[in-house]
Amino acid sequence: MEQERVSKEITPRSQDFSQWYLDLVLKAEMADYGPVKGCMIIRPYGYAVWEHMQADMDRRIKETGHVNAYFPLFIPKSYLEKEKEHVEGFSPECAWVTIGGGEELEEPIATSEAIICSMYAKWVRSWRDLPILINQWANIVRWEKVTRPFLRTTEFLWQEGHTLHATAEEAQEETLKMLHVYREFSEEVLAMPVVWGPKSESEKFAGAHKTYAIEALMSDGKALQAGTSHNLGQHFSTAYEIEYLDKNQERARPWSTSWGTSTRMIGGLIMTHGDDTGLILPPRVAPYQVVIVPIPPRKGDWSEAVLPKSREVMASLRATGVRVHLDDRDNQQPGFKYADWEMRGVPLRLELGPKDIEKDQCVLVRRDTREKIFVPLTEMPAKVRELLDAIQSGLLQRARKFLADNTTEVASWEQFKAVMAEKRGFLVAGWCGDAGCEAKIKEETKATIRVQPLDREPVAGSCVRCGQPSPAQVYFAQAY
Amino acid sequence: MEQERVSKEITPRSQDFSQWYLDLVLKAEMADYGPVKGCMIIRPYGYAVWEHMQADMDRRIKETGHVNAYFPLFIPKSYLEKEKEHVEGFSPECAWVTIGGGEELEEPIATSEAIICSMYAKWVRSWRDLPILINQWANIVRWEKVTRPFLRTTEFLWQEGHTLHATAEEAQEETLKMLHVYREFSEEVLAMPVVWGPKSESEKFAGAHKTYAIEALMSDGKALQAGTSHNLGQHFSTAYEIEYLDKNQERARPWSTSWGTSTRMIGGLIMTHGDDTGLILPPRVAPYQVVIVPIPPRKGDWSEAVLPKSREVMASLRATGVRVHLDDRDNQQPGFKYADWEMRGVPLRLELGPKDIEKDQCVLVRRDTREKIFVPLTEMPAKVRELLDAIQSGLLQRARKFLADNTTEVASWEQFKAVMAEKRGFLVAGWCGDAGCEAKIKEETKATIRVQPLDREPVAGSCVRCGQPSPAQVYFAQAY
Repeated sequence: MEQERVSKEITPRSQDFSQWYLDLVLKAEMADYGPVKGCMIIRPYGYAVWEHMQADMDRRIKETGHVNAYFPLFIPKSYLEKEKEHVEGFSPECAWVTIGGGEELEEPIATSEAIICSMYAKWVRSWRDLPILINQWANIVRWEKVTRPFLRTTEFLWQEGHTLHATAEEAQEETLKMLHVYREFSEEVLAMPVVWGPKSESEKFAGAHKTYAIEALMSDGKALQAGTSHNLGQHFSTAYEIEYLDKNQERARPWSTSWGTSTRMIGGLIMTHGDDTGLILPPRVAPYQVVIVPIPPRKGDWSEAVLPKSREVMASLRATGVRVHLDDRDNQQPGFKYADWEMRGVPLRLELGPKDIEKDQCVLVRRDTREKIFVPLTEMPAKVRELLDAIQSGLLQRARKFLADNTTEVASWEQFKAVMAEKRGFLVAGWCGDAGCEAKIKEETKATIRVQPLDREPVAGSCVRCGQPSPAQVYFAQAY
Repeated sequence: MEQERVSKEITPRSQDFSQWYLDLVLKAEMADYGPVKGCMIIRPYGYAVWEHMQADMDRRIKETGHVNAYFPLFIPKSYLEKEKEHVEGFSPECAWVTIGGGEELEEPIATSEAIICSMYAKWVRSWRDLPILINQWANIVRWEKVTRPFLRTTEFLWQEGHTLHATAEEAQEETLKMLHVYREFSEEVLAMPVVWGPKSESEKFAGAHKTYAIEALMSDGKALQAGTSHNLGQHFSTAYEIEYLDKNQERARPWSTSWGTSTRMIGGLIMTHGDDTGLILPPRVAPYQVVIVPIPPRKGDWSEAVLPKSREVMASLRATGVRVHLDDRDNQQPGFKYADWEMRGVPLRLELGPKDIEKDQCVLVRRDTREKIFVPLTEMPAKVRELLDAIQSGLLQRARKFLADNTTEVASWEQFKAVMAEKRGFLVAGWCGDAGCEAKIKEETKATIRVQPLDREPVAGSCVRCGQPSPAQVYFAQAY
């Protein structure tokens, strides 16, 4: 009965997707609203997911030759002084930090580019100083009108890479390298398949020569931009007057890139895998990969046999490197605990009762398939490892199938509108390359061009909207 | 000659300590000034030190039962709206983030307490929700009039723990537990010995029941507060109306603590170990523990034998978990490289030339003692490990000796003034407990009470300034 009580609190996904998402975020204690609109607290359970993501992403960023640094929040003193004149009685110890924001979540804000490029202008003197391959992990503030935890908040956490190169070719290579780091991370760690490629002119980052993105498909059929990589050409090195002496002792301008991913990916994770019972977390980022629920005996005390054995099991699992938690709350029934951890998306539940102990076994229950497996305790650690791997790859497969099932090659404008009205997803269609035509499609169907795919051969044809020649198909979708 | 060229750039410590410090910070590329006064960029070399510190501190914080979370920067919307009225033409996408600062670097600012306590008031309902043991890694902004990289900057990085407990005893236990975590971290990781204990009333954090600190002694004889731990009593839980139902179903107020350490510790590290040649980094936080400098043959190409062998040596060291860097710059002489890495404080230099390769040996040079050791290549990895351990403990011993040599038990006010005028350091002296007396001592000698020591038995006597009875001696020093 307890189990039902918890499940019922989650709004069914089919009934109200947006409320379902918020229920998962709040009830699984991934995040909470702050006292100020649009501000989010990342609670310990959600932050642990971020820590696992961050550790893995950081390793990938370093393995591709980058180093971390920290650039300050930018404080225009003139604003501060202006402020002091206006706000009477405002303590002089207080600082106003002003940060410019934009409408697009994944865009590096002007202040990052301003502070970082102005430092690069100071640091780079000779061709020997290139390439500059710096990343930073930071918080960032944007003024957003409509906010949703993880997806669009006034403040979020991210990593942003900013690189300088001697040639245009190197900058382009770097841009694509990081796009693929993001793609692999998304698939291998988050089990979140993506399509990837360049953005159209109207969707690219202002000032970029070319913007590339990875785009994932959420279970409501909308696309989520989960990471961007910009080839900035010489735009910013010109604006911030970055110059160096090349091998011929001549003055030259470097080529730059920037790329970023954020806590927004956690929102993608939730909307890719979650179901009506709650979160489903891929083992690689789950704070707890296994939760042990001890079943008390009908009569007698659980601390005599069940609890000591559970602790033993926990220790043996922990020794193999598995992140395991023992739910020894004595004021809750097993049924309540099952539902609680299902809601929090723990990949595997391990049940252990007096009868199991008699038989020297335990019960493992998969969160993704709900499959129940009886395992001798001696084989348990190996089985847990095997099941965690199976869940990780199973989630990716399931999401890949969903993405494939919801990717429609559309041949006509009528079909385009029908698919957008019905199930959405990715629509593969021809496009003439005209921004006006792109704008009309968005106006009439909410679909925008997500990427020009790099994962499939270009097929020439005609524009789905106007019928003019199309050099290649693009991916359309309604975006978060 | 190259060597001299680099060394000469560093101002001798005895000549101008403050300039010596800045030379080390800037020339070793630990940090750089930002375009706005008081803003610091932590450059990759400095940030790598911070990453090693952070990883170790984070492990200690988690091992003592804490979890990480992330609380937002606080944005009072009323200020924002007020601002919009005043600043004409200011884009509505821009957000003003206002953060209150204080004079004392180690004090948690009001906004942290405000946002965190207001969330705790929402989360805590029952005695089963206690204790709350949350830490966060964050950036923080303070408006400071006089700034110095790492020691006092407009923005810095830190960790801040905020805990809630059911009893006053538990809160006190937590306060001391974290003080000792800081103490052990400082000694074991930074090789920076400290004295520790409670602050006097006038030096404690406003609103705290009791503030404890660790204080290190810099090589100019001034003390650096390197970490604080506050027992906040019920002050903040009362102010933010945090309440819960205790085991008897009665409403109760929890007891809270907060504690923090910051990038300021990097400044302490530099001023504890550095010398006129540059930084000296303890192996546990050194970005590179060993740098290999290949010596080219007098005639012929170094890429034939020296460079391949150096790469081999690097691989064999890296396989044992040592952080090693091969300096294969082909436009610099070995002498220049020696000086460069000495300046950057790399604990061990490994020299490898044609003659060494003939003899199947290499030369290891310690940064701390400059001792030169010839080692057969087969024994090299074991010797490197042994020397790194020896350098780590040697630095701590040296710093402990310095602290002991510069701790003076003073019996008279004349002696107090003489020691402060001459060599400073820690002055152990009686104090009557009166804040007015404390203020006079500061006014006349710049010395403040750093801590009431917990590392030595209290010795009763008389106040060094006024002669009134003193219940115990305290540590005085001029503070950073």
